[in-house]
Amino acid sequence: MREVFHDTLEDIQNRLVEVAELVAEAIEKATTAFTTGDVALAEEVIAGDERIDQMVLTTDEIAIETLAMQQPVARDLRIIVTVLRASASLERMGDLAEHIALLVRQRYPERAIPKGLKKTFKRLGELDVLVAKALVELLRTEDLRYSTQIRDTDDEIDELHASVYERVLGDSFGGEVSGAIDATLASRYHERFADHAVAISKKVVYLATGDWSGEEDVSTIEIVDENAS
Amino acid sequence: MREVFHDTLEDIQNRLVEVAELVAEAIEKATTAFTTGDVALAEEVIAGDERIDQMVLTTDEIAIETLAMQQPVARDLRIIVTVLRASASLERMGDLAEHIALLVRQRYPERAIPKGLKKTFKRLGELDVLVAKALVELLRTEDLRYSTQIRDTDDEIDELHASVYERVLGDSFGGEVSGAIDATLASRYHERFADHAVAISKKVVYLATGDWSGEEDVSTIEIVDENAS
Repeated sequence: MREVFHDTLEDIQNRLVEVAELVAEAIEKATTAFTTGDVALAEEVIAGDERIDQMVLTTDEIAIETLAMQQPVARDLRIIVTVLRASASLERMGDLAEHIALLVRQRYPERAIPKGLKKTFKRLGELDVLVAKALVELLRTEDLRYSTQIRDTDDEIDELHASVYERVLGDSFGGEVSGAIDATLASRYHERFADHAVAISKKVVYLATGDWSGEEDVSTIEIVDENAS
Repeated sequence: MREVFHDTLEDIQNRLVEVAELVAEAIEKATTAFTTGDVALAEEVIAGDERIDQMVLTTDEIAIETLAMQQPVARDLRIIVTVLRASASLERMGDLAEHIALLVRQRYPERAIPKGLKKTFKRLGELDVLVAKALVELLRTEDLRYSTQIRDTDDEIDELHASVYERVLGDSFGGEVSGAIDATLASRYHERFADHAVAISKKVVYLATGDWSGEEDVSTIEIVDENAS
């Protein structure tokens, strides 16, 4: 009986990792589509979001059923609680990837990125992908160094996000209103994506340590940022 | 022992209602500040968000502790699960009220609302307040008619939100880029606020019925929309 239970727990954790992988794939495609204007890639992201939503729903169902039937304690209980608290954020990350893809579709055959912001959005996209991949590893390994990496990358994203606002509001911005709005929304989607990853990573710190603050600090960074300047 | 447990459960539910009340107060102040330019009111919302965050954290802590110590079953378990899944959305609703208030502070002594959109934002604000109050009642009474009201009001908000985009992107929009950006962000904050209420209401449907789809339909509307035209 206990063995069956632990198979279920492992299944639930694997499902959450799988959702995170789909989200990482979605954000990689969406941000690439956004910088290149590749509308076919954007359509893939839009079509794929339903699958993420369904997987989250199923994972939640199994988690609650396990909670009800097996009455887990200690770490087993923390696993279930973490899944229930993280799954909604993962679903939302998938939505944000879809929102970025929708901007591409909406503006096609034009590019959604206003002049002068291409480099910034390329970097924002790379950093979101980095965050998504670190999140997969964090959920897979519970190695808390990934949590540190996610928070550090989120800080970098916040700075870039602020710079986009300054830019479109500045006198030197020569673009149209629609370009300013696209940039504002797109930048916000990129930033919120990373915020959700930070929120999940705090819950994984709780899972691994039982520490409520979610602020456990570990130093080394794991996922290599190949695009760092 | 069981009595102590049920006192705890009631305490947890009351805490969630209290958070929802604070959120309703925050959105009422924030949307009023947004339409009137009352920066003092905006500052109240900004200063008050920390309290909402803290209350959410405490409620989560007590819920997880109860889960671990009391091993609740059936409806008791559903209450705890609902609290854990709803609290993050409530916290986020508080954040969105704060974001609206921050726009007021940022633009002061100017008004954040671009010309021609005042009426739309007044209505968006009223509808968000309506949603927030219906959510309080839904959590307090579990009367699922409030859930229906929240979804209906959300549909109305979505339409208004779409109309803001059309307006700032239209040829007739004579405002500045900054006004277009403020309107875009503010409209999105109003819309997301209601989305979170819908998400919570689905979880309350699950609590009340055990139905997973969250789509239980009940007809009569309860909170009176005094501002309906």
